Amino acid sequence: MTLTPAGPLFAAVDIGGTKIAGALVDGAGRLRHRRQLPTPARAAGTDVLAVVHQVLDHLAATADWPAVKALGIGSAGPVDLVGGTVSPVNIPGWRDFPLVAEAAAHPAVAARALPVRLAGDGVAMAAAEHWRGAARGAADALCLVVSTGVGAGLVLDGAVRPGRSGNAGHLGHITVELDGEPCPCGSRGCLEGIASGTAIARRALAAGWRPDGADRSARAVAAAAAGGDPVALAAFDRAAQALAAGIAATATLVDLGRVVVGGGVAEAGDVLFAPLARHLDRYAALPYVRGLDVRRAELGTDAGLIGAAALCR
Amino acid sequence: MTLTPAGPLFAAVDIGGTKIAGALVDGAGRLRHRRQLPTPARAAGTDVLAVVHQVLDHLAATADWPAVKALGIGSAGPVDLVGGTVSPVNIPGWRDFPLVAEAAAHPAVAARALPVRLAGDGVAMAAAEHWRGAARGAADALCLVVSTGVGAGLVLDGAVRPGRSGNAGHLGHITVELDGEPCPCGSRGCLEGIASGTAIARRALAAGWRPDGADRSARAVAAAAAGGDPVALAAFDRAAQALAAGIAATATLVDLGRVVVGGGVAEAGDVLFAPLARHLDRYAALPYVRGLDVRRAELGTDAGLIGAAALCR
Repeated sequence: MTLTPAGPLFAAVDIGGTKIAGALVDGAGRLRHRRQLPTPARAAGTDVLAVVHQVLDHLAATADWPAVKALGIGSAGPVDLVGGTVSPVNIPGWRDFPLVAEAAAHPAVAARALPVRLAGDGVAMAAAEHWRGAARGAADALCLVVSTGVGAGLVLDGAVRPGRSGNAGHLGHITVELDGEPCPCGSRGCLEGIASGTAIARRALAAGWRPDGADRSARAVAAAAAGGDPVALAAFDRAAQALAAGIAATATLVDLGRVVVGGGVAEAGDVLFAPLARHLDRYAALPYVRGLDVRRAELGTDAGLIGAAALCR
Repeated sequence: MTLTPAGPLFAAVDIGGTKIAGALVDGAGRLRHRRQLPTPARAAGTDVLAVVHQVLDHLAATADWPAVKALGIGSAGPVDLVGGTVSPVNIPGWRDFPLVAEAAAHPAVAARALPVRLAGDGVAMAAAEHWRGAARGAADALCLVVSTGVGAGLVLDGAVRPGRSGNAGHLGHITVELDGEPCPCGSRGCLEGIASGTAIARRALAAGWRPDGADRSARAVAAAAAGGDPVALAAFDRAAQALAAGIAATATLVDLGRVVVGGGVAEAGDVLFAPLARHLDRYAALPYVRGLDVRRAELGTDAGLIGAAALCR
């Protein structure tokens, strides 16, 4: 084994409702010095920030820190690139929280005046898959994370497009049922309310599915579906239908070539991807929307960190 | 009045299911030598092409022709920029019809080897409104034409983005009702099936509205709604609801600042725009989607020609 030259490194931080992760990322998208801490999601905003600073402390203490050229942050949204702020739905202590300024004020970041780049987590995932994953080489792609919620980011004309606010591609909150259920976001009939892991488990339970063990999550529904349980299969089918309509809508609006699907729910494999293909055949009907190249994400849970680094390139 | 110098001119052709129009367009977006002929929509493809050539003959016979630098064509879609072909739904004689090559082969175009630019009519309308109309100065905008159908085009990062195929922004065929009615496009629950003028008139008639005269179109429904007819008002309200969901979905996906609404149905004025604003308040709920700047289109029925010229700039 030969050691490749370090080249420039990027510091990456991935902020979600359950964990805050950090790492240094090299020019090939490989992680070093990964550190992960639980998010004190219900704590005061300053306590959440303290965890971000702990992660940065760890990275700044490594021998590789002097090679770091920039800091990238992917955060649960919504974010606001114009103001450099974040207001993650699941971190109530942060509302219009000046994350860019606070991260830039970390002593080791400030000492080297590192540029700080921010984007929503869906955008970061798309940046990762476009750089080093299943969207590599795609000119126009939608990259989705289907897990507790449904996030996504867009690649247009060969580059990740965060939009002015940094939230573009937020597929989970487009309406696919005009008269559907109210969504916590304030709208109604949102895709996330049908296609997320949370929604899949809720639908299966409401229709009479009962887990074998204590796990009542979409993962257990997926296992039941893989075993042929018709109620579990129907819950995934409905999620796939909503995803297909949302993917087709995006392709109709921006003319996509490729779609990358990741996240915990996508780990259900064919239980999700088989009905997704069937429903896409129906909803993606116009000639320029047909034949989308749908692929499974390649980068798993590190996509957030790799994407935060990709934002700095 | 002073005559401004001619400057470069563009030849523009606008092809729809009912008319084929042409003009020369100057650098200020003003039309000269406008000529319009009916589309022989049910005729053979060569007969439709003959009308396009008649329009070009007229333009090429003007004293301004030598100043023409390029030919722009906006066509009813779908189009295919990669192949230079068009397959307008309402012109069955044209399927994968090589319009770019056939226009380039017109003797006066070929003699000067003029470049030929093509886009879908929604994209052309957006190009027009961005150049000289209500989307001027907008970095990110959606421009809609609500008439017999619902077409649209996108402006992203300060430029019209036709997408690889030239059809991007085709808002009429995104699904807003997951289990909605089948659409002629092959999908179901499409926005156009609820929000087009055709759909408004159909809904009003089905709900018991009866026109005073022979006009059973959305224009007559609009007149009744302006007079307080509750059935007519409800038909426009439903259309506005679907438009709001589709506009909000687009804003959620690409992060818009401005929305421009034109077309015959938009001429209903407040009958459409008042419920549209009310429904947008509901569907455009995420912070970065709120407060969209919704404006009425400024260029009317010449938008197609002005936009075809804008494609050449």
